[in-house]
Amino acid sequence: MPKVSEAHREERRRQITAGARRAFAEHGYAGATVSILEQEIGLSRGAIFSYFPTKLELFIALAQEDQHRLLQLWLAGGHEAVVRHIVDDAPEWLAVYLDASRMLRTDPDLRERWQSLNPDAMAQLERHYTELQQAGRVRNDLPLETVGRFLGIVFDGLAVQQAARFGAPIDTEGTIELIRAALAPK
Amino acid sequence: MPKVSEAHREERRRQITAGARRAFAEHGYAGATVSILEQEIGLSRGAIFSYFPTKLELFIALAQEDQHRLLQLWLAGGHEAVVRHIVDDAPEWLAVYLDASRMLRTDPDLRERWQSLNPDAMAQLERHYTELQQAGRVRNDLPLETVGRFLGIVFDGLAVQQAARFGAPIDTEGTIELIRAALAPK
Repeated sequence: MPKVSEAHREERRRQITAGARRAFAEHGYAGATVSILEQEIGLSRGAIFSYFPTKLELFIALAQEDQHRLLQLWLAGGHEAVVRHIVDDAPEWLAVYLDASRMLRTDPDLRERWQSLNPDAMAQLERHYTELQQAGRVRNDLPLETVGRFLGIVFDGLAVQQAARFGAPIDTEGTIELIRAALAPK
Repeated sequence: MPKVSEAHREERRRQITAGARRAFAEHGYAGATVSILEQEIGLSRGAIFSYFPTKLELFIALAQEDQHRLLQLWLAGGHEAVVRHIVDDAPEWLAVYLDASRMLRTDPDLRERWQSLNPDAMAQLERHYTELQQAGRVRNDLPLETVGRFLGIVFDGLAVQQAARFGAPIDTEGTIELIRAALAPK
């Protein structure tokens, strides 16, 4: 048999994560059986699990991709860009993300891994906000952790409300203004 | 057979909602089968479904109770009280609540019902914040809907992070201060 090229492997990997994302978004983590994964991905379980050893590893790979994309957006465009992304794109990943919060609740090992999926981007973000605090562009009467955590809380809350398709459309610019006021130096 | 008294019915109802809450918190909505409900509640399915016609109605009854309690707390103690409640009590209802956001996503009828579970308390809350805006104690350069929605977003985000038992404990007072700054008149 010919040696499978790196490009081919990469393409297969993308096929698997794209199909798995659809399966998890529609059925949730528990509901996406191996049969459903096979159907959505269009590959046999043998092929799928030669790329990702378990369903959990496949799920974590999706979460890592999503988190990475979001962190890059945050670094490039500030938290305003993240708010706009969550509100305007109402993306598929919200369902996956909310599913994870249930799983994390009962699995301390997964929780620890989850929090260090993208260590480099996380460290970069921390440096960025430290600089903003030092430059007096973000309030520094509160610890960096409190401010960063607050932004995480707002993003998660937006994700829940968009996932639930709750009520009237969110006032994106008004929400960004409220965050600005929360973080403004005193 | 003797006529079942109103007090007895009320007690039974409480037994059912308490057991169902444990079942949903542990297994999620879909995972809490009728057998699991019977076991946790300690009554037969016949008895359970004579109080609540379907599993969905039972779930909605729990959500209504929770929302009612939270709205009363909000009215009595302000949004600070709600933040403290979510952070410090890390209550069981968070899991139920997050489950709902998935169900609401795909069920427009449920979504509409969900948003009018406690119409009186919701109207009271709206009047309260209108007064705060008029008295200049909450910023009035943004619509009431935007400000109210923002608080809902923060509560939901806190719920996700507490449900996932994410990271270090939340800085409750710092978070309340950030909300205060966000809402402060300019």
